[in-house]
Amino acid sequence: MEPEQTNAPQWLTAEERRAWLALGGVVLRLPTALDGQLRRDAGLRFFEYMVLAGLSEAPDRTRRMSELAAFAEGSLSRLSQVVAKLEHRGLVVRSPDPEDRRATLATLTDAGWDLVVRTAPGHVEAVRTYVFDALTDAQVPQLTAVAEQILQRTDPQHERPADR
Amino acid sequence: MEPEQTNAPQWLTAEERRAWLALGGVVLRLPTALDGQLRRDAGLRFFEYMVLAGLSEAPDRTRRMSELAAFAEGSLSRLSQVVAKLEHRGLVVRSPDPEDRRATLATLTDAGWDLVVRTAPGHVEAVRTYVFDALTDAQVPQLTAVAEQILQRTDPQHERPADR
Repeated sequence: MEPEQTNAPQWLTAEERRAWLALGGVVLRLPTALDGQLRRDAGLRFFEYMVLAGLSEAPDRTRRMSELAAFAEGSLSRLSQVVAKLEHRGLVVRSPDPEDRRATLATLTDAGWDLVVRTAPGHVEAVRTYVFDALTDAQVPQLTAVAEQILQRTDPQHERPADR
Repeated sequence: MEPEQTNAPQWLTAEERRAWLALGGVVLRLPTALDGQLRRDAGLRFFEYMVLAGLSEAPDRTRRMSELAAFAEGSLSRLSQVVAKLEHRGLVVRSPDPEDRRATLATLTDAGWDLVVRTAPGHVEAVRTYVFDALTDAQVPQLTAVAEQILQRTDPQHERPADR
């Protein structure tokens, strides 16, 4: 595992490796863990719920698709598939943006709002079970800082900073 | 958003909400961010790479499917689909476990090993770019503790602790 090349990779240290195995595990497992309650209570997957919840908090329950992609996943093509499915279920409607005809708006319908309101208590309980019940009070702001700093790096709206 | 029910949900505090929005964003975006390099260099998605990397570190490059599910995702049915695809590409072979005929083993082939060795340097670089370059030295053990505690809650091999 030590390939001969001039730019040898900077392998992870033992401490970074342990952190990465744990974070990678969370990234792979947490959506599956949260899916259980969401599927049962609302027939939704985690990403779909995040899209609806994102709309429920926006002014007029409406966002541009491009904003929603940045908010939720980063892939506009995957978002389009998910929103088409939610539209088919009557939870969301899409319309051209009157301020920019090239852009598309997504709006939560009344049925979508009702579903978010009905599903939110169980979802919050699941988030508490899997995340906050596991952490001490002091760890919550640590998690915020770490996750926000990583998020900034993965946000497709931001150029990857050359140095910081 | 305050439904009338006897067991009112314990909504997130402002601080928990901020932590959850950031963690939820990381969970949704990090696999997509890492997929870019993996698709380009190896035609693999993040989860598929994690399965191969998990096998590459096991004795005889072999694990039981049930262990691999716990390691990587938690869903044996989804794992089976992914491993079938990797087997079709000649990267993995499955066989019955001689010690327990009901169990199935997955083994990394030489081609799978070569692919992991070729892909690892670029993957480590991407993990550095998106995760460790964003963090201070002091934050790395904080991330380890937080992620391991969450992981313990989401691990399907562990019963959900009644109290801790």
